[in-house]
This record gives sequence, structure tokens and C-alpha cells, in this order.
Amino acid sequence: MSLRFEILARDGAARVGRLVTAHGAIDTPAFMPIGTAGTVKAMTPEGVAATGARIILGNTYHLMLRPGAERIAELGGLHRFMNWPHAILTDSGGFQVMSLAALRTITEAGVAFRSHLDGSRHLLTPERSIEIQHLLGADITMAFDECAPFPAERAAIEASVERTLRWAERSRAAFRPRPGHAIFGIVQGGVHPDLRARAAARLVETGFDGYAIGGLAIGEGQATTFAMVDNDAPMLPADRPRYLMGVGKPADLVGAVKRGVDMFDCVVPTRSGRTGQAFTREGALNLRNAHHADDPSPLDPLCRCPACTGFSRAYLHHLTKSREILASMLLTQHNLTYYADLMADLRAAIRVRRLSDFALPEPAS
Amino acid sequence: MSLRFEILARDGAARVGRLVTAHGAIDTPAFMPIGTAGTVKAMTPEGVAATGARIILGNTYHLMLRPGAERIAELGGLHRFMNWPHAILTDSGGFQVMSLAALRTITEAGVAFRSHLDGSRHLLTPERSIEIQHLLGADITMAFDECAPFPAERAAIEASVERTLRWAERSRAAFRPRPGHAIFGIVQGGVHPDLRARAAARLVETGFDGYAIGGLAIGEGQATTFAMVDNDAPMLPADRPRYLMGVGKPADLVGAVKRGVDMFDCVVPTRSGRTGQAFTREGALNLRNAHHADDPSPLDPLCRCPACTGFSRAYLHHLTKSREILASMLLTQHNLTYYADLMADLRAAIRVRRLSDFALPEPAS
Repeated sequence: MSLRFEILARDGAARVGRLVTAHGAIDTPAFMPIGTAGTVKAMTPEGVAATGARIILGNTYHLMLRPGAERIAELGGLHRFMNWPHAILTDSGGFQVMSLAALRTITEAGVAFRSHLDGSRHLLTPERSIEIQHLLGADITMAFDECAPFPAERAAIEASVERTLRWAERSRAAFRPRPGHAIFGIVQGGVHPDLRARAAARLVETGFDGYAIGGLAIGEGQATTFAMVDNDAPMLPADRPRYLMGVGKPADLVGAVKRGVDMFDCVVPTRSGRTGQAFTREGALNLRNAHHADDPSPLDPLCRCPACTGFSRAYLHHLTKSREILASMLLTQHNLTYYADLMADLRAAIRVRRLSDFALPEPAS
Repeated sequence: MSLRFEILARDGAARVGRLVTAHGAIDTPAFMPIGTAGTVKAMTPEGVAATGARIILGNTYHLMLRPGAERIAELGGLHRFMNWPHAILTDSGGFQVMSLAALRTITEAGVAFRSHLDGSRHLLTPERSIEIQHLLGADITMAFDECAPFPAERAAIEASVERTLRWAERSRAAFRPRPGHAIFGIVQGGVHPDLRARAAARLVETGFDGYAIGGLAIGEGQATTFAMVDNDAPMLPADRPRYLMGVGKPADLVGAVKRGVDMFDCVVPTRSGRTGQAFTREGALNLRNAHHADDPSPLDPLCRCPACTGFSRAYLHHLTKSREILASMLLTQHNLTYYADLMADLRAAIRVRRLSDFALPEPAS
């Protein structure tokens, strides 16, 4: 295996691990902030690292369109381009080509589409997706996949899963193994346990460095998401990292960690930070609410981030109401710190085998 | 005098000084970044201080409307509210009530207006302006003034100047002197040397801790601005700081320092940073230009700021084109660092009496 992954502690299905990439080690369970267009929005790379994050996610679809994968490679790769010295996982582009691109046509070869930015024509195939991720210099590459919409006909999902499995084999073959670099396969199959089981078995047969549980958190609801994780996780190799894609809110992370997931990505902490939502040890808060206007207390008195150590809720309310860029900067930094600390707390709970006691507060206003 | 100001070196009309406020000392000539609504846009307070700035400008008009001066006072004053430990100068609100407010009516009492935010009615008088600046906790308070538009009839300007001089006396009387806190008078008079001279003489007679040269940089052109500075500066006490309001671009600062100005404020470095404009030792650059797309070199190889030490022009171009918040953050930080370093270079040139040799590059693309 070209990616070292050690499991250091277990509690039920949950595990604490250490993933060693070409750009450093990552303690798992880990949350990966989203760095769509070569930047975690409203954050400097130093700020991202200060939250505790040691791996971020970059988007193949966005970066291939602007500034272009070959251009980033010429400039020394994505790590250097965005001045991020730690690990990067890139998605395959499959999800976003479906959700963002115009006039897309799926064939066995791949997906033909027009850019949402300028209408230019592109073809994304498994081979091109892997090449782009190679040009970007991803530590972890994702196999090119199709994420079926929810809800969808079972027959359509089945056909999509089969194509995605063929694309996974082509992705695996196109990937160039190097020490500290990995390729993950992605389990699809919608909310159908048997389709997902078939996908998991076939991916394991092909053999990947890690496995993603995909196609979830797209409207099926938390109970169904968890049921699918319960279905998929035991089918994946115990000694390989498991990544639940696009998840989630704090309670989703806690539930998925309990079910054996090691890695997550989600826009929630960053996007929420830009709309005045903050996650705290008292629950989620909306800083736009007027009752914060005179509150001299910090956002979260137990938080170590600059928003909490330097400013009052009253000030953060003022910035949010005034649509100041600093509101996005401080609340994003806070939310990513909250997520990083939540993952650290989960790791600590697993180490002392107290994960079953782990509880989050109910959402506040 | 409640504000210590020492002149440490001279070169022609130019001086190097040290202004000691209740929130620390400021080396002059100094540039004050604009912190309109309790934040220097796209910057953390630590980031502002890292540029070298030790004084910022806060806007009375904006802060009285949102979040309100009494609220900021309740929360411990503007320094604490925005977590800025260094000095703050507040403007009087006079300029912005004219440029931003709706349905304004000027009388001898002051200016009645409606808020541009919610249409609420307000009255700003000299006494209320000084009270607001007191509530904010300004280290340097500005006398309430009217800035006549350019161009305007001489008779209208003369009436405005006379009213502003009466307002200046009322402002002086309303100000509560405390150690390290100051009130500055503002010379108005448009582009009429005799009106400006009359204003300067009357302000000096009233007696202020410092003097602003106001009503300029509003369309009259650099040559006229400089002519008015040449007119006003010699009339102001040599041992008191002189502040040229709303100026300017780098070449404006150099010319005004040569004419004996000690302090400046302007939106140019911060606003430009949010629109892809960067000031460098090679001149001004527009990062949106496509010829930066593949350029691996730093914005300014001699600059010490995070934008220049961490990133390429290609990356900054990408961020700017993609309208990423990080573009505003990095370019604002760069431009404020450039301005702070320019002021430091001017101070160094005065100390060695080489200011006449000081030259800026011609603007590039």
C-alpha cells in the first residue's frame, strides 16, 4: 500500500488512526475543510492550519476550469500554488460536473459538459480525472464516479453503480502509485443496501488504498445515511481508511465516527461561517439575531480561536449585520476550529473507550 | 497640550515626529488605515498591526448609526469592541453625513438627516459629534465640520467656512481634555487661499492639539491640493501635528510629506485591495490582467507581507478572477504594508536629509 494507515485505538466500531501522506500525518477521525478553488474561503493557509486541520479537500471540477490543472502543475502543484504545506485530497470532479456543469452528457467514456463559467466544452473521463489530480499533486486521489441523484429509480442507480465500478477500475489503472500518495474507491448505490454491498465488494476486489462511502447526505435524511454507513463500513477492509463524503453537521460526524468512519468533508463549517452561523459548545447560533447585539460574552468561552479570544458576540453580530468580510473570516475560523476540536474530542473519547457517552448539546438559536 | 508631539528630525518643510496617545506612540509621517464600521475591511486587527500601522481611523457617521455610540461605550469603547489596542482617530461625521445621508438639512445647530441604512432621523451637532467620539473613546477627536463640495460658489464656501469655524469653537468647548487624548481643528475653504488662511488663523486662535487640512482631494487635482497645502501648512503651529484628510495615492503622500504634513488617511489602499489593485515598488498593478496568470514571481519581491512572501502573482490573479475573499485579504494586507513601508522610507529619508531625492516608480499595468 502506498499510504500508511495505523489504527491506534478502538471503541466499538470507532477507531483512532494515523494516516501518513507525502505531506505529513493526519490523526483520524479527521475533518477536511473544503478548499474549492485553491483557497479555503475567507481563510489564509496559516489560519486553516491554526484550526488544527492537516488535510483539506480541493475540487477537480473547479480547478480544471480555473485556473487549469496544467497551469497549476507548471506553477509547482496545488500545494505550492496555494501555499498549503499539509495534505490535500482532491475529489474526482464527478459530483460537481453533475451539479454545476451545463449540457452534460454521460457515456461509458465519461462526462462531456460545458463550463458553468464560460460555456467552454470539456470531457471528463476516469483517465482525465486521475491525470488532473496527478497534475494538482493530490496526496489522496479519488476514483472518478457518478453520484446518482436522490431520489432516483433503482434501475437507474444500478446502471450508474455498474458504470461507476467500471470507471473505478479505469481510475485504479490510470493512477500512478508513489510513496505517500493514495487512490480511494467510492461506494455508490443510493439507499439500496444490496447495490452498495455489491459496489463495496467489487471495489475491495479491485483494491484501493482507502474507501469512500459516497452518494449520501443528498436529501435522504440522517437515519438513512447512518443505515447506509452501517451497511457499508463492515464490508470495507478494517485496516484501510473510510471516508464519508459530504458529511456533515456535528451530530452527523459523531454518529458516523461511532460507525467506524475515519474521514469527512463538508461545506457546512465554511459556508455557515459566511452566513453568520456558528457552532459552539452550547449548540449552533445565528449571529444575525438581534439578541446578540449587546452581549459582551465570547461566542464560545471554551474555544481557543481568535474569534472567541478576541471579540464579543456583540461585535460578531455587528460585523455580520454589516456584511463585513471580517465576519466571514472570524466565523469561518471559529467553525473550523470547532470542527477540529470536535474531532480531537472524539479521538480522545475513543482512546479512553467513552465514545458511547459522547453527546452534543441541542441546537440553540 | 493633552497630546505630546515631538519633532525629531527635519528636511526642508518635512518633519519626522512622534505622537504619543493614550494608546501608544505613532511615528510620523504616518498613514492611518480606514476602519469605517469598526473593522479595517478584510483585515484582522493583528493583521493591521502587522503592517506597521499604529493608528487607524474610525467613522463617526457609520458607527453612530450601527451599532450606535452608546452601545459601543457600554461594551467598553471602540478599542475593546474591535480588539484594536493601538490609537484611533475618529472623524467628525461631517464629511459622510454630506456624502451618504439622505434628506440632510444644514442649520446653524448642525445637520439633520436620515440614515442611509434604515431612513431613521438623526441630528448631528458639534456637541453630539464630540460626545459620540468621546463615547467611542477616540484618542484623536476631530472638530465637527462641513466639507464644501467641489466645485462650489465662493460665497457658499465662505458661508460654510464661517459656520465651520463657529462649529469648531463649539467642538473645542464640548471636548473633555484627558491625557493622551486630543482634538484637532479642520481648515476648510475649498481652493481659495484667502479663505483657508482665514480659517487657519481662527483655528489657531481657538487653539487645538493638532490641525487638519480638509476639504481637499475631492476632485480639484493634485497640483491644486499641493498648492493649498503650501498655503495652509506654514500658517499652522510648527510644533503641532498636521493631518491632510482623505489623501491619497503614494505620490500624493510623498508630495504632502515634502510640504510638512504629518498624518494621512485614505480608502485607496484598502478599497484597491478589494478590487485587485496592488501598489508595488514597480508601480501599481492590476491583478485582474491576464498576463499575470502564469507568473510565478511574487507581487513585490522586496515586500515583507504574507501576500508577497507566500504566493505568486499567478495565484493572486486566480483569486482575484475567482472573486475569492482571500484576494481581498491578501491584497489589502499588501497595500497597507506598502503604505506603512512607504511612510517608514519617507521618515528615513527625512532623517538623513535626502527627501528631495525620494522618487516613486511610474505606474505599471
